Amino acid sequence: MPAALVKQLQAVVGPRGWSMAPDVLEKHNSEARNKFTGQAELVLYPASTLEVAKCVKLCHDAGIALVPQGGNTGRCGGAVADQGQILINLARMDKILETDARDFTMTVQSGAILQNIQQTAEEHDLLFPLSLGAQGTCQIGGNIATNAGGLNVIRYGNTRDLVLGLEVVLADGTIWNGLSKLRKDNTGYDLRDLFIGAEGTLGIITACTLKLFPRPRHLATAWVALPNVEAALDLLALARRDTGDAIAAFELMSQFAQDLAVRHLPNCVAPLQTRAPWYAMIEITSSRPKDNLLPVLENVLEYALESGFILDGTVAQSEKQRTNLWAIREGIPEAQTREGGSIKHDVSVPVSAVPALIERGIEQAQKRIPGIRPCPFGHVGDGNIHFNFSQPENMPKADFLTHWDALNRDIHDIVAELGGSISAEHGIGRLKVAELEHYADMAKIRLLKTLKQAIDPENILNPGKVVAHK
Amino acid sequence: MPAALVKQLQAVVGPRGWSMAPDVLEKHNSEARNKFTGQAELVLYPASTLEVAKCVKLCHDAGIALVPQGGNTGRCGGAVADQGQILINLARMDKILETDARDFTMTVQSGAILQNIQQTAEEHDLLFPLSLGAQGTCQIGGNIATNAGGLNVIRYGNTRDLVLGLEVVLADGTIWNGLSKLRKDNTGYDLRDLFIGAEGTLGIITACTLKLFPRPRHLATAWVALPNVEAALDLLALARRDTGDAIAAFELMSQFAQDLAVRHLPNCVAPLQTRAPWYAMIEITSSRPKDNLLPVLENVLEYALESGFILDGTVAQSEKQRTNLWAIREGIPEAQTREGGSIKHDVSVPVSAVPALIERGIEQAQKRIPGIRPCPFGHVGDGNIHFNFSQPENMPKADFLTHWDALNRDIHDIVAELGGSISAEHGIGRLKVAELEHYADMAKIRLLKTLKQAIDPENILNPGKVVAHK
Repeated sequence: MPAALVKQLQAVVGPRGWSMAPDVLEKHNSEARNKFTGQAELVLYPASTLEVAKCVKLCHDAGIALVPQGGNTGRCGGAVADQGQILINLARMDKILETDARDFTMTVQSGAILQNIQQTAEEHDLLFPLSLGAQGTCQIGGNIATNAGGLNVIRYGNTRDLVLGLEVVLADGTIWNGLSKLRKDNTGYDLRDLFIGAEGTLGIITACTLKLFPRPRHLATAWVALPNVEAALDLLALARRDTGDAIAAFELMSQFAQDLAVRHLPNCVAPLQTRAPWYAMIEITSSRPKDNLLPVLENVLEYALESGFILDGTVAQSEKQRTNLWAIREGIPEAQTREGGSIKHDVSVPVSAVPALIERGIEQAQKRIPGIRPCPFGHVGDGNIHFNFSQPENMPKADFLTHWDALNRDIHDIVAELGGSISAEHGIGRLKVAELEHYADMAKIRLLKTLKQAIDPENILNPGKVVAHK
Repeated sequence: MPAALVKQLQAVVGPRGWSMAPDVLEKHNSEARNKFTGQAELVLYPASTLEVAKCVKLCHDAGIALVPQGGNTGRCGGAVADQGQILINLARMDKILETDARDFTMTVQSGAILQNIQQTAEEHDLLFPLSLGAQGTCQIGGNIATNAGGLNVIRYGNTRDLVLGLEVVLADGTIWNGLSKLRKDNTGYDLRDLFIGAEGTLGIITACTLKLFPRPRHLATAWVALPNVEAALDLLALARRDTGDAIAAFELMSQFAQDLAVRHLPNCVAPLQTRAPWYAMIEITSSRPKDNLLPVLENVLEYALESGFILDGTVAQSEKQRTNLWAIREGIPEAQTREGGSIKHDVSVPVSAVPALIERGIEQAQKRIPGIRPCPFGHVGDGNIHFNFSQPENMPKADFLTHWDALNRDIHDIVAELGGSISAEHGIGRLKVAELEHYADMAKIRLLKTLKQAIDPENILNPGKVVAHK
């Protein structure tokens, strides 16, 4: 790094706005799964959009690349810097700028922690529905840059669907102020959605205006036993109709996944006596003041039982019962680690293709690794199954994990044949650049490269992520 | 037009696939409001995506521009061709390809008529919520290219929010197959939303996969009298919460607008005795089998009355009463034409800024044209007011209409100050290219031009619309 540039950058952000300390850098250079280790020797913490813009302009003019970073909770190497690249972390830009209960909007700086946004909405008796495991640490800018998914997608959509406006610093340091609260706006191409999901390769998001919703006042939660995956789809369609599209969560899991949670976790009790190959959890919510959701959900289960979609089912009658249901569902990843090594996939297919994905995926995995124990679970309403596999009981964990890439390719081949996606919620980052190029058609790859080259011609912003520059 | 190119194009689309007949061309060259007249001497009717691709490639290689056209119901000159340009009309590509009730999706060719899509959804007991005046004629490809709004945006979003996947022919004739049914997909930049709302300037949409929803089984409709516009926002926020976000329509109108409809249209009766400066119509819907929406809406009105948000209100007790309410609301444009000339605006502002827009807009209009009669009405939940003005009673219509551009500029200035949009639902087309360039900041205009040049470098697709090429 040119010493003069470093000095100029330090002058822009001030003494609290940067670090070159090895222990600080180590934190920023490492990622959750330890698949990637960054090499940055300088991290910047700008305190304002103007500071971001000045830093980008300096780096642009010096030809030095910048890697934007939020809460660093990603898993695909999207916020990992190469040698000679500079990290720009938005942690100091964490302000909630405005909450407007009549607009149902909130405007925040992009370093705001997701959980703070959720809580602020709640204080206004409103809901910001984005909800995911890392919410206590992740920043909204990172959620937007990766178009994060999470638990509420079936009802409220992906992060993309929750954003009304953005402020973005472009590759040459220009600020684009698209911080709109508008619900309808047809003035030219959709710049907002171009930056959402671009993983910081087209611009650095510095602020955003988010959609808020009425806060649910009632909820009802059920656990059902299913004869097969097909039945889950019939139940889902029935429940969408008969609850008035009030489904907040619809989570499928195999018997093995449920049993792992019950076996390994304290205070988890199997909700049903009935043994079945598949279980599902359904939660519905409503913000009506006088709603009564229990009979609504019970009627769905009754009709599903008559129609053969479910073998058995129960609706939680207390908060304690409900907590138990969620503990099972949310405990599956933890329970799976206690069972040994796992190979995982972040894939989605059309909802109607979920049964084919699971059947063909399991068959192929068992062919590759006899004794492998499939542990599929997840958001069936989004076609987004966490297609996890636990190791065979008597295989050393390390041996099992050598099959990671080969099994990924097997599953991705099936996903591609079913019209699915090899990255449902986690993005491409550095991890899947080659995989994306392998599966996407030529027209798409050419368009992606055209966009990157047009909007960041000098390749200053997060180079090597999402798509190669040339 | 080069004769050789015309011959090649005719060979691609076959004898039924083109016309040079003056009477046929006249229909395609004229637009609803007669603001623009096209000059095309050849219209193509390709029958397949491959034919579209071949036509585009031939024109691209010959350097001749193409103007895509759907049902030709736009109002901004977006589908109007210049001398030497060729129209490509999608009318023959009108097939419904697939409806999947478990995916809640429908895949159609882009020439499919909106009303046919709505009806096909209904036959599957599902809803395609896009709904607008031209639905019997407009094509879904045109709706997508202009990101059409309409009546149901408050509940279901704009056209953009209803599209899962697209197939697009690019400027060099390449076909991009993005016909995805996926609810979650993070594999690279969001190409889909780049083509939505681009008015055919970046690619020609040939097919799409649409989102469907459960069909409402119940509805309830109310008419209320309001002391002022501020109260409409309080009522809207209350109704969003207390109906469980079940609002399908929330339409505000001035007393003048209501009275015009009642005066000029047969069988329209004022729903309330109470005279008030503003009225609103609210409709809520639900697909639950056993729902009872009347008390839900009555409770909202009761609380609104206690809180002073409304002066009076009534909930329709029969289908006949409901029809009367809709007849008033939908009759306003027709009633306004019977009252003489009107000057109109397609604008939106943040929901919370609607009162300021109306107050300041009326003040400014009365300053410019004393005696002008404001007739604002529309989708207050989207911040999208049809800000119409009727002529003063004793002014000749032609004199009044000479003020069109100046009054537009007055209102657009106020809209811009309030963070609003000068094109809420109709798009830019040819009509507002200069207006967009006037109001948008430099960074935005530069990005729009960068995108156009990168994706259509030869300026083959609908040149001169949305944004100038250089």
